[in-house]
Amino acid sequence: MKKAVVLVSGGLDSAVVLAMAKADGFQVYALSFAYGQRHHVELDAAKKVVAKHGASEHKIVNLDMRAIGGSCLTDDIKVPKDRVSMDRDQTDQAHAVPVTYVPARNTIFLSFALAYAEVIGSFDIFYGANAVDFSDYPDCRPDYIQAFQNLAALATKAVPGKSFHIHAPLIYLTKAEIIQAGNRLGVDFSLTHSCYDPVGDLACGHCDSCLFRRRGFLEANIEDPTHYF
Amino acid sequence: MKKAVVLVSGGLDSAVVLAMAKADGFQVYALSFAYGQRHHVELDAAKKVVAKHGASEHKIVNLDMRAIGGSCLTDDIKVPKDRVSMDRDQTDQAHAVPVTYVPARNTIFLSFALAYAEVIGSFDIFYGANAVDFSDYPDCRPDYIQAFQNLAALATKAVPGKSFHIHAPLIYLTKAEIIQAGNRLGVDFSLTHSCYDPVGDLACGHCDSCLFRRRGFLEANIEDPTHYF
Repeated sequence: MKKAVVLVSGGLDSAVVLAMAKADGFQVYALSFAYGQRHHVELDAAKKVVAKHGASEHKIVNLDMRAIGGSCLTDDIKVPKDRVSMDRDQTDQAHAVPVTYVPARNTIFLSFALAYAEVIGSFDIFYGANAVDFSDYPDCRPDYIQAFQNLAALATKAVPGKSFHIHAPLIYLTKAEIIQAGNRLGVDFSLTHSCYDPVGDLACGHCDSCLFRRRGFLEANIEDPTHYF
Repeated sequence: MKKAVVLVSGGLDSAVVLAMAKADGFQVYALSFAYGQRHHVELDAAKKVVAKHGASEHKIVNLDMRAIGGSCLTDDIKVPKDRVSMDRDQTDQAHAVPVTYVPARNTIFLSFALAYAEVIGSFDIFYGANAVDFSDYPDCRPDYIQAFQNLAALATKAVPGKSFHIHAPLIYLTKAEIIQAGNRLGVDFSLTHSCYDPVGDLACGHCDSCLFRRRGFLEANIEDPTHYF
């Protein structure tokens, strides 16, 4: 059985990615980060998702991204609310990188995934990049993923006949399609957490991530199990 | 004055890189990591080097690379000794990646440097990669650096007319040439620390890093201020 490193954030997307990697027949090594998030609901969700779907190992790496800062997800900057319409056609987001963008976060996470893959002898890394809803995040674009794959080939000990593959199976899916795919693969969405700014254990319901999630369930015609504030 | 992020490990090479960045007229933002090294002598040296040469800021980021492991520098694996001859022509190192290689370490470090650069608005990152003495480390090769530069362009918020430059000014220099350059730039080598396996505050004198350093000072005909065990 081939080994894969799967980045699991605790969100809806990475839960679907984990289920996809398992369905593809990979032996899963889950990787999460305590990176100085404003809240720990996310990491608790990651643990539950991995426990539900099963993995050979789940590593949680501590890294202090607050030391670098530059995002409302790590700094004390207000999370923007009510910017996403429930009607996709009405959405008129400015094409600018949002303050929820954490500088180079995916690059840092993929670098750790690469280290982990190298240690366990895996050449497959899965992550939930999406170029539809999060089109303004530079490190979620297809050409970024290709560039990371090129780097991975040069960054590690070469093994003849092997090369790294960065899998981003959600890249061209809408949130509704991601939810439908997860639904078919038995993902329990009630375990997942998307909110950038939870109120206790409840999702705020108004940040970009909550709004994309709510709209996704609406469009997928699947009941949203999320408890909103 | 242009800003540059400089990776400072506490070793001889990165001290010279820091001096070069300053000589090139950059305003320096130094970056070091507490990454689960086996010892803290290295980080203490980084602080002294930055204090000597001056920097606008010195960030030390905590990250737990022991969680990933895979190297004698983070795990409890014995550091190999006496593998490097004092006579360069007699050196017959096997061309294999040594156990002192930390999987994807430079990729992780450069990713943090990229995050830091993005936050402070810098497009220049300096690091002490060397393809001469450390030719067997995959992430010290020129084509790796080019691949990281390509990634950086795609990984971050685009700024019109700006692109990242990964500077590796030591890449083609021998250790002796690095020492000579540092000497001209006023680097105080007594502050730096290269040993992989120090005995208290003393360098072991026999690991690859100590041996390259010792040979470098010999070849440069400059007195080695290091205290060896």
